[in-house]
Amino acid sequence: MTDARFDALCIGNAICDVFSHVEEDFLVRENLVKGAMRLIDTDEALTLYGKMGQTVRVSGGSAGNTAAGIASLGGQPAYFGKVAKDELGETYAHDMTGTGVHFKTTPLVNGVPTARSMILITPDGERTMNTFLGACTEFGPSDVDQEIVAASAITYMEGYLWDPEEAKKAFLAAAEIAHQNGRKVAITLSDAFCVDRYRPEFHGLIKDGVVDIVFANDHELKSLYETADLETAISAAEATGILTALTLGENGAMAISPQGRVKVDAQTIDEVVDLTGAGDLFASGFLFALARDYDYKIACELGCLCAASVIGHVGARPERSLKDVALQDGFSI
Amino acid sequence: MTDARFDALCIGNAICDVFSHVEEDFLVRENLVKGAMRLIDTDEALTLYGKMGQTVRVSGGSAGNTAAGIASLGGQPAYFGKVAKDELGETYAHDMTGTGVHFKTTPLVNGVPTARSMILITPDGERTMNTFLGACTEFGPSDVDQEIVAASAITYMEGYLWDPEEAKKAFLAAAEIAHQNGRKVAITLSDAFCVDRYRPEFHGLIKDGVVDIVFANDHELKSLYETADLETAISAAEATGILTALTLGENGAMAISPQGRVKVDAQTIDEVVDLTGAGDLFASGFLFALARDYDYKIACELGCLCAASVIGHVGARPERSLKDVALQDGFSI
Repeated sequence: MTDARFDALCIGNAICDVFSHVEEDFLVRENLVKGAMRLIDTDEALTLYGKMGQTVRVSGGSAGNTAAGIASLGGQPAYFGKVAKDELGETYAHDMTGTGVHFKTTPLVNGVPTARSMILITPDGERTMNTFLGACTEFGPSDVDQEIVAASAITYMEGYLWDPEEAKKAFLAAAEIAHQNGRKVAITLSDAFCVDRYRPEFHGLIKDGVVDIVFANDHELKSLYETADLETAISAAEATGILTALTLGENGAMAISPQGRVKVDAQTIDEVVDLTGAGDLFASGFLFALARDYDYKIACELGCLCAASVIGHVGARPERSLKDVALQDGFSI
Repeated sequence: MTDARFDALCIGNAICDVFSHVEEDFLVRENLVKGAMRLIDTDEALTLYGKMGQTVRVSGGSAGNTAAGIASLGGQPAYFGKVAKDELGETYAHDMTGTGVHFKTTPLVNGVPTARSMILITPDGERTMNTFLGACTEFGPSDVDQEIVAASAITYMEGYLWDPEEAKKAFLAAAEIAHQNGRKVAITLSDAFCVDRYRPEFHGLIKDGVVDIVFANDHELKSLYETADLETAISAAEATGILTALTLGENGAMAISPQGRVKVDAQTIDEVVDLTGAGDLFASGFLFALARDYDYKIACELGCLCAASVIGHVGARPERSLKDVALQDGFSI
């Protein structure tokens, strides 16, 4: 990773995931759009929680998951995100630092609680997310530690940062510092509904050179370019002249760049238990490889390996050392 | 379940499980006895927690897991156990009532926090438990709701209740009420080290007719009768004249009673992820069947099915409806 202290700095909404298994008809009864992330207020959060059965709690947040994945690969990640000074927030910080992520964002005192996302897993492994943003709404430019940004090969940020007003400013501030220091800036489009909310602004980020790399899945890319045809979306991504890391679910992944397209197949896995974190962990592998100057093919392959390892269990954080998984799979990282 | 409102009343230490995957050498470095449960104080809890990486949190406690399993089978369980009025305690109560367990024990206010067990899972799926008892030390006879005991076909209690002083008194009080109302009383021996701590007292419970049913695994039964030979232990159990429900790991389970021995094979499963809760969930199936007057063979089979369903994922609570699992497997419950 050349002279950078950190492979990647990940910035996002610091959220605790509260998982519960539900049947399909639960989503119908609650009028929820399957596979989507929606934002909910305190009242909605309490009502929905009251209807959920057995829960499992794991630290989450898209970029947080990505940072944990990089650490698990043996990389050096940093993370910015706002938790509150409460039990969930303490757990979040423990899980980050305990796995080797540099995480020093000051927690919020005497304000709203740590964010939580109630994630409903249907029998097909799909997840429907209901997020109460809590302390994330207090994350802003003052939380952007310039030294860390400057020391990170890539600053990777969530499209979800567009949801809390001040976080968007933090995104732009971090991007500027990264570029001033000759570093790369990446965005993940987060989800197709997020793209729908902020499409013109995301186009602006690409056109204006605020971001150098775009992470997306097929739904998100099609949403960005407002087309139902994947090939049309890929061509549009190609025309931007910047790197797009595209995940294609069971069809693998593709790196799209001025040097052409590189496509790899997905890993075969026994059973999909929970798709939460597949995209986040793909980004872990891809970013790690990029920061260490591996080529796009290896980046895609390592991304797919990390994604496969996380969908066999509940939760979006690795349960085993991804470095060990990669070494066993023949990678020499 | 004849005239009983509840199939089983489960009484135990109400504990939140904090799981973390570790390598074998972590146990060696920390000087921990693999597979055992040990009690730790606040300082030890903080030190160990600081060394753990990524965590997953699930409501636990042996008898609590059993109660959740009975609810998942479509049964009617009740539970007594002490949590504190804090975030973990609130989660514990949510998970109990959300899955259909009758749980009304008054939470502890202004005292020690809710109990937590730091469970280290090694690559073989074995778990090593480090338990901070917290609010469980305040559980006592005044928490035994007579009406619920009287309305439960079986009152099922943990050997672990011998650890906090007042809980032992609650155990004896509940057993007396159950018998006064013509109900059955069961004990699980909890773990071989627990048996080692309270062997004479456990023998007394059996000899004096305080308990009618003993749940044990092979290690616990051998510890109870101080023998390395399983057949010797089984013969000793036979000689007590009461029912023993014995789990044998990958070799299945056996009901030992004056009517003879009934042995069933274990379910075949793809992958053992985490053995936590296997014994607790066996008890769910066995108790449910017993309360509904099924024979010992079906009780053992249903127990093995429930146990198999929980060891394929992290956490000791069912992730899918055990009733659906049982129906798919050909049970007509």
